[in-house]
Amino acid sequence: MKNRLNKILDIIKKNDLDAVALIAGPNLTYITGADFHLMERPTILIIPKDKKPIAILPNLEVDSFKSLNFEADIISWKDSDGFEGAYSNAAKKLGELKTIGVEGQRMRVFEIDIMKKAFPNSQIINKHKEIVEIRLCKDESEINNLRKAIKISEDALTQTLSIIKEGMNELDIVQELIVRQYQLGAHGLAFNPIVLIGENSALPHGHSGNRKICKGDALLIDFGCVYNGYNSDFTRTYFFKEVSDSHRNIYNVVKEANQIGKNISELGTDLHDIDDKVTGHLESSNYKNCIAHRTGHGLGMDVHEDPYVTRGNNQKLEEGMVITIEPGLYDVGNVGVRIEDNVLITPKGPESLTILPRELLII
Amino acid sequence: MKNRLNKILDIIKKNDLDAVALIAGPNLTYITGADFHLMERPTILIIPKDKKPIAILPNLEVDSFKSLNFEADIISWKDSDGFEGAYSNAAKKLGELKTIGVEGQRMRVFEIDIMKKAFPNSQIINKHKEIVEIRLCKDESEINNLRKAIKISEDALTQTLSIIKEGMNELDIVQELIVRQYQLGAHGLAFNPIVLIGENSALPHGHSGNRKICKGDALLIDFGCVYNGYNSDFTRTYFFKEVSDSHRNIYNVVKEANQIGKNISELGTDLHDIDDKVTGHLESSNYKNCIAHRTGHGLGMDVHEDPYVTRGNNQKLEEGMVITIEPGLYDVGNVGVRIEDNVLITPKGPESLTILPRELLII
Repeated sequence: MKNRLNKILDIIKKNDLDAVALIAGPNLTYITGADFHLMERPTILIIPKDKKPIAILPNLEVDSFKSLNFEADIISWKDSDGFEGAYSNAAKKLGELKTIGVEGQRMRVFEIDIMKKAFPNSQIINKHKEIVEIRLCKDESEINNLRKAIKISEDALTQTLSIIKEGMNELDIVQELIVRQYQLGAHGLAFNPIVLIGENSALPHGHSGNRKICKGDALLIDFGCVYNGYNSDFTRTYFFKEVSDSHRNIYNVVKEANQIGKNISELGTDLHDIDDKVTGHLESSNYKNCIAHRTGHGLGMDVHEDPYVTRGNNQKLEEGMVITIEPGLYDVGNVGVRIEDNVLITPKGPESLTILPRELLII
Repeated sequence: MKNRLNKILDIIKKNDLDAVALIAGPNLTYITGADFHLMERPTILIIPKDKKPIAILPNLEVDSFKSLNFEADIISWKDSDGFEGAYSNAAKKLGELKTIGVEGQRMRVFEIDIMKKAFPNSQIINKHKEIVEIRLCKDESEINNLRKAIKISEDALTQTLSIIKEGMNELDIVQELIVRQYQLGAHGLAFNPIVLIGENSALPHGHSGNRKICKGDALLIDFGCVYNGYNSDFTRTYFFKEVSDSHRNIYNVVKEANQIGKNISELGTDLHDIDDKVTGHLESSNYKNCIAHRTGHGLGMDVHEDPYVTRGNNQKLEEGMVITIEPGLYDVGNVGVRIEDNVLITPKGPESLTILPRELLII
C-alpha cells in the first residue's frame, strides 16, 4: 500500500497541490484497503503533501480502518456529537492548505460543503482525471482479481445457456445469472445483468422485463460480477433456435469490429485510433445508422473508468491497462448486437481475458 | 407521477428557487420512473418553476426515458460529440435561472461543474434536505413494495437459519442470504449482507470474513433486499447452540430498547425523543460504554434516508414515514447485539413491517 500512497503524493507534487481529499470509493480502497459505503455519514481521508494523512471517520468505522494498518491519524466523531468538530480539528492539525484536489466524479456537494467550511481559505479543485491515473495500470494482483471475476461470469453464462428454453423471459435469465455468479463465488454484481430479447436488444441500455424468448430471437446478455473489488463486464449476443440472414449479416459486422479492436490494442496505441478504426468499420458497413456508442472503457475497480476508448481521447495504451472492446449495432424495432471483450494490454500484445466464443451461436 | 412532479414544484415555490436539477438516483426515479445509473455520462433533469422540464440525456438513454411518458423536452448528446453542446442548448431554452436547487448528497462535483458552465450566472444551492421531503411519507404502492422487500428478506433469513451448522463461516452465510433473496424474487440487494460471528459482532460496521461459527457464538445478521426500487433493512442477533448469562443480559437490554422505540413511534412524536428514550435506556443499563450509534434512519428508495432517528432531529413523525428502530450494544472483543425493525407510522399507531421474533433464539 506504501507504493500506492506514493502515487497520490506524486500526483500532488506534479499538480502543485497541497493535498488530495478522498471519500469512500475505489480510490480510497486502492490506497488504504478500506471498503466503506458512501452514505450520509461523511468519511474523508485527507492526504497532505508533507504530513501524515488524516482520516476523519464516523466512530463506527474506526475499528475497521485501524485493522488496515494504513498509517494515518484518525479523528472520529459520534452520531450524537455530529461531524463538524472533527473536521475543524482536522483543519487545525493540517494548517493552511492552499489547494485541495478532489475526485470530481465521486465527491458530492455534501462533502464539498463540509470541506469548504473546515478549510474556508482553500481552493478545492476537481482533479478526477489526475487522481484516477493511480488506477490506470493494473498490477499482477489486480489482474488476477479481474481474471477471477471474468471466470466466474463466464462460467455462470455457460451454465445459464445450458438451461435456457422456450418461454423463459428476460428476468428469468437475469435471476439465473445473478444466482449462479454468487454460487460460483462472486462478491457482488458489477451491475444488474442486462438481458434483452428480440427487438429489446436494440435498446443499448434497455431494462430487462417480461419479454419471453421465441424462435428466431436475438438474446443479448451484458453482465459482470465483482471479485475482491474488481469487475468483469462483457457481452455476448446469441440467437434462439434459428437466425435470419439479415441478423447474421449484422452480427458479422459487429464481430469483425470487435476483432479489429482487439487486434490493434497494442502498447502505445492511441485510444482515439482504436475507436476510430472500430467505429469506422461499423460506419463503412450497411448499418451506419445503427451506431449508438463509443468502443469501450477502462475496467477495474469501477465498471466504467479511465481510459475511455473513444474518439478524441489521445491517451496511449500502457502495460497493465484493461479496456473493453464493445462495438454494437442497434436496428431499432428489430435487433441489436453487441460483442464485448475485456482486453489486457501487455508487452506481448493484447490479451483478451474473456474467452467465450464470439462465433455466431444458435442456442 | 403528476402529483410527484407537483411536490417538486411546491418545493421550488416554498424555497423561492427558479429550478431544481436532479441526477440519476432515487429522487429522479421517484418523479419520473427512470432507472438510470450514476456514471461518467452526465444525466440531468432540470425542472424550472414555470416551464416544461428538460432532460439532458446521453442518446443511449433516450428510448428508455421516452417510454416513461414523463412530460419533458429531451436534449440528447452522443459520445462522439460530447455533452457540452446539449447543456448550453438547455440553458438557452430555459433562459435565466437565478437559483437552482440540487441534491447535495447525490450530485457530484462533476455535474456541478457542468451546471456552472452552462448556467454561469445561476446560484447553485444544496437543497438536499428540502428535496428529499418529497419521499418522506410513503404512499400505498410504496408501502406495498417495502412489505414485499421485507417478506423476501425474512423468508430468506428463515430458510438460511434452517441450514446453518457448525463450521460454516460468515461468508458462507452471506452467500446463502444473497442467493435465497434473489431466488425469492429480490431485484437487488439493499447492501452486501453483514454477517458477523462471535467477537466480530461487536464491530457495528464490520466486514464478513472467514470466521467460523462455534458453540456459544453470537451471530449478528444485518441485511436487506430491493424490490421495485424499495429497500428492506433489518437485523437479528442469534446465539449458536448455547448462550452465556452475560450475553443473555446484554441481549435483553437491546430487546427492551427496541421495544421502547417501537412503542413510542406514534404520529407527531419528535424523532429526537425516540432516540433519547431508546439510547437513554441503553445508557441507564450496565452497558453504557457499549453504545456506538443513534437509533435509526428513514427507509425507502435509499437504505438510509431522512428522517433520521437521532437526538437533535426535531422533525415529527408523520403518516407514511418508515423508520428503522435499531438499538445496538457492542462490547468490543466479546459480543455485539443489534435488533432492527422497520416501522411504519400510521394513524392507528406504529406497525412493525418486520415480524420475525425478537425473543432470544438459540439456533
